[in-house]
Amino acid sequence: MNGAESLIRTLTGAGVEVCFANPGTSEMHFVAALDRVGGVRCVLGLFEGVVTGAADGYARMADKPASTLLHLGPGLANGLANLHNARRANIPMVNIVGDHATYHKRYDAPLTSDVEGVARPFSDWVLTSANSRSVARDGAAAIAAAMTPPGRIATLILPADTSWKEGDGPAPLPSVEKRAAVSPDKVAEAARLLRSGEPTVLFLSGPALREPGLTLAGRIAASTGARLLAQTHNSRVERGAGRVAVEFLPYPVDEALSALADARHLLLVGSKAPVAFFAYPDKPSELSPPDCAVRTLATPEEDVTQALEALAEELNARGTAVPVQTRETPLATADKVTSGAAAAVVGAQLPENAIVVEEALTAASGFISGTQGAAPHDYLQLTGGAIGIGLPLATGAAIACPDRKVVCLQADGSAMYTVQALWTQAREGLDVTTIILDNRSYAILKGELANVGAGSTGRKADDMMELDRPALDWVFIARGMGVEAGRAETMEEFNRLLATGLSSQGPYLIDLLL
Amino acid sequence: MNGAESLIRTLTGAGVEVCFANPGTSEMHFVAALDRVGGVRCVLGLFEGVVTGAADGYARMADKPASTLLHLGPGLANGLANLHNARRANIPMVNIVGDHATYHKRYDAPLTSDVEGVARPFSDWVLTSANSRSVARDGAAAIAAAMTPPGRIATLILPADTSWKEGDGPAPLPSVEKRAAVSPDKVAEAARLLRSGEPTVLFLSGPALREPGLTLAGRIAASTGARLLAQTHNSRVERGAGRVAVEFLPYPVDEALSALADARHLLLVGSKAPVAFFAYPDKPSELSPPDCAVRTLATPEEDVTQALEALAEELNARGTAVPVQTRETPLATADKVTSGAAAAVVGAQLPENAIVVEEALTAASGFISGTQGAAPHDYLQLTGGAIGIGLPLATGAAIACPDRKVVCLQADGSAMYTVQALWTQAREGLDVTTIILDNRSYAILKGELANVGAGSTGRKADDMMELDRPALDWVFIARGMGVEAGRAETMEEFNRLLATGLSSQGPYLIDLLL
Repeated sequence: MNGAESLIRTLTGAGVEVCFANPGTSEMHFVAALDRVGGVRCVLGLFEGVVTGAADGYARMADKPASTLLHLGPGLANGLANLHNARRANIPMVNIVGDHATYHKRYDAPLTSDVEGVARPFSDWVLTSANSRSVARDGAAAIAAAMTPPGRIATLILPADTSWKEGDGPAPLPSVEKRAAVSPDKVAEAARLLRSGEPTVLFLSGPALREPGLTLAGRIAASTGARLLAQTHNSRVERGAGRVAVEFLPYPVDEALSALADARHLLLVGSKAPVAFFAYPDKPSELSPPDCAVRTLATPEEDVTQALEALAEELNARGTAVPVQTRETPLATADKVTSGAAAAVVGAQLPENAIVVEEALTAASGFISGTQGAAPHDYLQLTGGAIGIGLPLATGAAIACPDRKVVCLQADGSAMYTVQALWTQAREGLDVTTIILDNRSYAILKGELANVGAGSTGRKADDMMELDRPALDWVFIARGMGVEAGRAETMEEFNRLLATGLSSQGPYLIDLLL
Repeated sequence: MNGAESLIRTLTGAGVEVCFANPGTSEMHFVAALDRVGGVRCVLGLFEGVVTGAADGYARMADKPASTLLHLGPGLANGLANLHNARRANIPMVNIVGDHATYHKRYDAPLTSDVEGVARPFSDWVLTSANSRSVARDGAAAIAAAMTPPGRIATLILPADTSWKEGDGPAPLPSVEKRAAVSPDKVAEAARLLRSGEPTVLFLSGPALREPGLTLAGRIAASTGARLLAQTHNSRVERGAGRVAVEFLPYPVDEALSALADARHLLLVGSKAPVAFFAYPDKPSELSPPDCAVRTLATPEEDVTQALEALAEELNARGTAVPVQTRETPLATADKVTSGAAAAVVGAQLPENAIVVEEALTAASGFISGTQGAAPHDYLQLTGGAIGIGLPLATGAAIACPDRKVVCLQADGSAMYTVQALWTQAREGLDVTTIILDNRSYAILKGELANVGAGSTGRKADDMMELDRPALDWVFIARGMGVEAGRAETMEEFNRLLATGLSSQGPYLIDLLL
């Protein structure tokens, strides 16, 4: 058994079932071993940003560690932006990155680079395997590192000869760190604060936005008068009709400041203290008011659900009745195509138990409200701000949940970064309906230009934000990659095409002209 | 004048005329200043790998420093693979990378990352501007660093507030290091070696492959019996009818070993000692035979052309008659579509003074021979092995040379990595004819799988190398990005479509089904 085989057996032994891949020469022994070993489904992406983004989407929905296979420093580099997003989503991910054979590196062949250096800025754990005997053990350590709460990015670099030389057989998974329980003192302090009667916000993220956590948070809020608020961007929110409703902190700084203006206490529950996404001249970086005390019930690393259970217990709120979201089917009143009207249509048509992937940027808040009373669904967001995640994320989510419909709400500019994901959706026959929110511009930048006070612009600056010369034809682009597609220029067309997409098996793309 | 303006004025003062860009919020003051300042043409790419690859192509053809504008760590990360290639091509390039405002970084907002850490593996020079007063001086230092021989990658990180606060006005370019002259001793030693009569190879790259260098090398070879050989991959080769012909060292290890088997001396002229691209079990990493002495006439950093002049002088070869390549129009004999037949057609139709960008991978050697006797042209190759450079490189070359036809010989799998470049070609109306060598597979990996001895494969491994399920439709993809296109399934069709592409103004794409 060579090193590559011993590594694959180690991965499957630890529960890794899918590997998202874009391999090259140095990974050929790993690739060849896939058929001999079995147990790993290998999903090809035609660009590495697709690979890492899909791995992220898979892990979010499968609640299992994701794995990727990438080729040398440049291949890893191509996947870094979505690794950044995955890291901000606290995803457990193991990246296997091939490198030149150990003895070949000193010749500085053209594809040589400092692979560890490339990995480090977006990895929590980096190791280069020394030889084929250590590869399995290193792989097991990588998985354990990835599974360390709250979920981490582990990058294992595999010189080619560590794959092709004789290995030592699979290695067992070392003991994996568990989420630490929150101390009774912290719970008691949070309870005191909630009993004070002063305006308090439970600021939620991570497991606090999954159904059990959210229900507990809802009971606590109902029994104390506290307000629930989700982080602006979250890995996964279980929401919709029948679930505890939660608003999201808005992205624009002024709106975020307003949303928090009345709070005197902010209790962090699996979240981080709210800060502005960017700095703007004369606006604060911290979003909570100066006279608001920020305290932590549970860090992202801690056992967030246990902390909420203990807090509900302390407050005698475990049996408190909690109001849930009612099913609301917004009426599509407008004929005019807007993202708001589109959000209403999506909210109305969204099937039970769908997965909504949202990289809608300027249209995001409209879709968040438009789907609030939709059938129960999971809502996955862009966690790290590196655009180009939507199509890959939807791809990975569909791999994880083949029986659920995935709806991808996708800004046009961002879609271009990892457009190759459409091909993987076609190849794997994934049940993804993509809605391109086609405003033919980097609309968010127009707002940001004003927000940062950069002054008036001329033709050159405008050209950096307008994508209409020429307009992208998303129907052609989708068909070029094997995905059926249609264009909607009216709300009636959008209604009809969305029904087509949602009722078809396999990928479908709607180019919604805004 | 704010920091951004002072920086742009510094860039234009130092001769920077084009900036390839994909900006975001942190770069909005830079973008807004473009219209106020003037003098910089700003070219938008819809993905950062397009931006860095186009900057590379521009610098290769303009012989001027290239500049890019990128957004934070993830934006830079997206551009790294083509920065790797540019670095291996010894390109002078200044990357301006926006970052969060200095005071905002400590809040660890979602898009925060270690931008210097991201830059370092593929940059020769990295600096974060401390404040708006130092930005212009830092920019001047970045240009000087980029122009240091043989051409370097300089990355200047610009926290947002260093752009928007008051600057100190433009800074002058500090003195730029020149290529060092090669010592008379080294020239004399090379002359002795060439006079020995033992089989000697002049191994050429960099300026030795531009017309003046190549002519001198040809005279030296003609007067001493030495053989000329170019590196396998080069930034730019001036070749074709009327110029000194030079073969390229083959990529496959066995062919490379054969090509060098008889050499007893290898004289490096702007090149590096030849090594295998990858390691293969039981094959050597060094490609020159054990009994061949490798000596250096001029390193890539030194004045390669001056060294060749001095050597020709020393050998009394400055007036030696040098045979040049005759115009050869290969006959397209085959009806069957092959890359070899396509190469003959390209060789026959290539217009005078064209720029050929080649990322043909498995078809590369066929195109090198097929165009050897074509009309004189420049030939630009993939220097660093990070695939996905062809379309961007062609884009940048066309920006640099608006009066010349660019022909891009592009493997299909590689084309997908930076396919967004087609949109920039359409927007800028660039005169690029792209030929997609559409074999619907990562053909090179099939060969590599055998070369590394990875054994037999099954369905899973094969799926990592086959792109035919579904087949990409390149005509749709091109039209989706605003580029006119046609499909060739016979040599007759290819002949006709190539004539159409070459005679049209603006971009055109041919999907050549192999």
